[in-house]
This record gives sequence, structure tokens and C-alpha cells, in this order.
Amino acid sequence: MRYLRADERCLICSLRQAENLLKKTINSPEKRWVIFREIFRVMSEMKWGMKPLEVNGKVHRFIMEYVKEEDPFKEEKERSNEMAMKLVEMFRTEILNSPDPVYSAAKLAVSGNLIDLGIPGWKTEDVFEKLHEAYERPFDREDFEEFRNALESASTLFYIADNAGEIVFDKFFIEIMKMQNPSLEVMVAVRGKPIINDVTVDDAKQIRLEEVATLIDSGVEEPGVVLDKATPEFRRMFFETDLVVSKGQGNFEGLYEEERENLFFLLTAKCDFVAEVLKVPVGGKVFISSSSL
Amino acid sequence: MRYLRADERCLICSLRQAENLLKKTINSPEKRWVIFREIFRVMSEMKWGMKPLEVNGKVHRFIMEYVKEEDPFKEEKERSNEMAMKLVEMFRTEILNSPDPVYSAAKLAVSGNLIDLGIPGWKTEDVFEKLHEAYERPFDREDFEEFRNALESASTLFYIADNAGEIVFDKFFIEIMKMQNPSLEVMVAVRGKPIINDVTVDDAKQIRLEEVATLIDSGVEEPGVVLDKATPEFRRMFFETDLVVSKGQGNFEGLYEEERENLFFLLTAKCDFVAEVLKVPVGGKVFISSSSL
Repeated sequence: MRYLRADERCLICSLRQAENLLKKTINSPEKRWVIFREIFRVMSEMKWGMKPLEVNGKVHRFIMEYVKEEDPFKEEKERSNEMAMKLVEMFRTEILNSPDPVYSAAKLAVSGNLIDLGIPGWKTEDVFEKLHEAYERPFDREDFEEFRNALESASTLFYIADNAGEIVFDKFFIEIMKMQNPSLEVMVAVRGKPIINDVTVDDAKQIRLEEVATLIDSGVEEPGVVLDKATPEFRRMFFETDLVVSKGQGNFEGLYEEERENLFFLLTAKCDFVAEVLKVPVGGKVFISSSSL
Repeated sequence: MRYLRADERCLICSLRQAENLLKKTINSPEKRWVIFREIFRVMSEMKWGMKPLEVNGKVHRFIMEYVKEEDPFKEEKERSNEMAMKLVEMFRTEILNSPDPVYSAAKLAVSGNLIDLGIPGWKTEDVFEKLHEAYERPFDREDFEEFRNALESASTLFYIADNAGEIVFDKFFIEIMKMQNPSLEVMVAVRGKPIINDVTVDDAKQIRLEEVATLIDSGVEEPGVVLDKATPEFRRMFFETDLVVSKGQGNFEGLYEEERENLFFLLTAKCDFVAEVLKVPVGGKVFISSSSL
């Protein structure tokens, strides 16, 4: 059985994320220091063998007890969504006219994962240029032929979403898949509760995701889906649909052990640790079947 | 009184340094995880109000109890020294012919702090280019006129060194200062015990620093000098010489509160925290009098 075991890189990374979250929400450096001491106490008890997502989830949940705001990334997520909605229109014609629109839209969906769209004051033109550069780079690893075959015969697709902003490109990818396979029914899983910049039902409604898919709440409090903590509806979708696309690194970490047929991971390897597991460089674009892991 | 108080950025930074040190010395990921848990336990007890250097020193000393090698950076330091000895010769004529060789040599000494010279396989030409680019950038903050005046009338100079590699540029800077003031007597403080890549007596001997100065052991176990932990000889030098140059960020952190006359800090601001204190950008080059802090 496959198993993803966190190492010290994941410990440090979860602390960096904690730093980012606390900086956003707690003004007093002394208070942040005291919260960090508490985080270190929690971390001093973490058992060897935990998964990266468990480390992250534990630190994140602990911090959220101190953070009064319900959704500290709300504004950033809204900005990302707005930026992405402009960007997707700038890509639309190019992708529709490309030799393989499904493939191109998948490339865009994963490239949007690489670039932070939520930075205030960024100019659309500059972000477009960066995003286009990322988009033009080919996948570092792919099983796209296998995916295309699965898509052709699928009646139901379960799409497990990742962050706000890139969700706009996911919506576009779904649109294009439905052009190729008009009878395809699509369900998209988003987080029920705010977790960092992960897309929630509210964020998905902002971009009218329901125009192309039914929204499903994953029920998970980690920044990525772990099946045994997901809602029964999520688990049912995961096992009973014809085709599953898991988007982003968090969901990859959470679903790494699952071996169902027609499960595809679409992600950018954002850290050393996951890049090593995937055997691609950091920043590598990946669209692989779980059967080739 | 001036006081430098660490914040959460220093906590995270000391952990990154711990990660770097453990990766170099402990092969088993499980063992590293267990040591990290112990580090977190130590950090969960750190009091608000500590100095950055105390945080760093505490983590570093704790790790060294687990690390069997006496000087895990030995090879890296030797490589840095060798690289720097080649580089300094490539700069010699240019600096001697510059309008103000003391100023130019000071710029080189602080630029050498920015670039990691110890990376295996690096080509001298490429490193020269990077270093020259850094060297050409002017100081971001300087009190060089005040320094020049102090240097002209000084009979004794106490130079508190930082890392291996850049120590070669420090030696060159001292040489040039002695050309301007031939009667100047120079003492250089290095670490008595190996601490990360800080220069030790052995490293200083590799580059024959004794040709231009007398070596003094600081006696300090932190990666930077704190006066009340230094040897009596170091303290005597610090207070009784005419002029003191403190090199690098660690020594700046340690000596920040001292207000003696003719104390100058020559450093690159390597992190957010120190850049903020110095009011320069990260990576900023600084040559300031302690009186202007």
C-alpha cells in the first residue's frame, strides 16, 4: 500500500503557513509569539508517521481557535476570483482554437494554481503575462491519453476543487469537457468551512460555478480531502462516479493512498517533498492517473 | 537604551537553520523528526523579550548536542575560503586603482557576505560575475566619512569577523586600511569553536590572516558576539582599541545595544527583521556608526 509520511520539511512548511495566517489576523507581535509557543507545544507531540496534510491540518485548526475572523482569506479569495474571471476571458479564444481544447484548458487550470492571483494592486496585464508563461510550459508528467479515453465514455465526473481564483479556470475546464461530452454530469466538491484560501461554497457562488456543476461540501477541516473525514455524500461521489479529477497538492496528499479506477491528479508540485514523491521538479505541472503513482 | 527583541520571524528562521544543519548531519528522517520535536519543546518555553541571537544560539547549541561531527560546515568553509582567495585576486587591481580603495574594499567585504561561496562545483567566473554585480551596488546606508576620520587617527583596530570565505575579503580590507595607515595595529576576533559557517581560528589560518592581524578568540557559542559571554580579552579589545569594525548580521544583533565611540557595523541585511531595524531593503549593504543607530 502507498503511504505518504511527512518529514521535517512538512513541519517547517506548516509553521510558515502559520506565520502567514497569524500575520494576517493578529496585530500584536507578543500575542503572535505566545501563540507560536503554543503551536510548538502541539508540534513537540507530533508522532512520526503522520501525513503532511495531518501536520498542516492540526496546526491550522489550532491557530483558528485564536483567530476570531471566520474567513481571514475572504478578501484575498474574492480578489483572486475577480482577477481569474478577467484572465479566463483573455485565454478563451486561444484555448477554444487550440488543437486540443480539453488539454489546453487542463494546462490553464493547473497553471492558475502556481500564481498568486490575490495580491492587491496587481495589474491584469502583468498577471496575464506570468500566467501565460506558466501555461505554455508543457506538463512534466501526464497520462492524458488515459484521461481522454476515460472522459469519452464517462457520464459522471467528480471534480475535487482546490483554491479560490483557480476555481475559475476549473469552471472553464469543466465547460470545455462538457463541449466534448455534452451528456456529462459534473459534481464539484468544495470546502464547507473556510480553510486558508481553499474554495468554499460562497467563493464558488461568486463565480457562478453552479452554471456548469452541482456543488458538494467535502466536510473536511484539513486543507485537502481525507476520505475517512469526508461527508458520506462526498465518499459516495468519490466511489460511484465514472471519473474523478483531484485538483491541487492538498487533495493529492489526502487521496494519495486511494487506488480507484479513473482517478486523476491535476496539480503543481509546490514543494520539495511532493516534487520528490511525483519525481518532477518543484513547480512541475502534473496530470497523472492514480494507477501510475 | 536600544533593545532588539526577537519576533516570530526569528523563531521560524532559527528553525530553517536547524533544518539546514540537521539535513547535513543526520541521515535518518525519523531521527531528524524526533530531534525537531525536542527543538519544538525547547521553543515552546522561549520567553518573549529574547534577542534574535539568543533564539538562534539556543536552538543551535541544542542541535549540536545531537550532531556528532565537531565542525559540520568544515568542508563548506574550506571551499568558501578557496573560492574567495581566487576571487580577491580578480578584484585586487580594480580596487587598488579605484578612487577610494578603502571604500571599495569595504564594499567588497560586505558583498562577500551576500553570496554563498561554498557551493560545490560552482565556476569561479560565474561567482565573480555575481559578486561583482553585488559589489557595484552602492551602500544603502553609510557613515563612511565618520569612519575615514576615525581610521586616520587610530593606532588600534579591533575587527570582529563573521563567516569563512568572506574573511578573505576582510583580510584584503585590512591590508588596504594598513596601506593608508601603516602604523595601524589590527586584532581580528574569530570564534573559538565551530558555529555554523562562522570563521574559526583554523579557518583563519587557512587563509593566513595572521599576516595582517593578531587572532583573538571571541569565546562565544552564539553565531554572533554578545559581550557578556565573550572572553575578558575580547571585552578588553572591544573597549580599549581606538576603532571597532563589527562584521555581519550576527555580530550586529549581538552588539546592537553597545554605544561605545568609533564602533562601526559593516553588514548585509539578510532578513526582513534586521532590514526593518536598519531601515534598508532586504539585501541592503550597510556601513554605519553605532552612534547613528
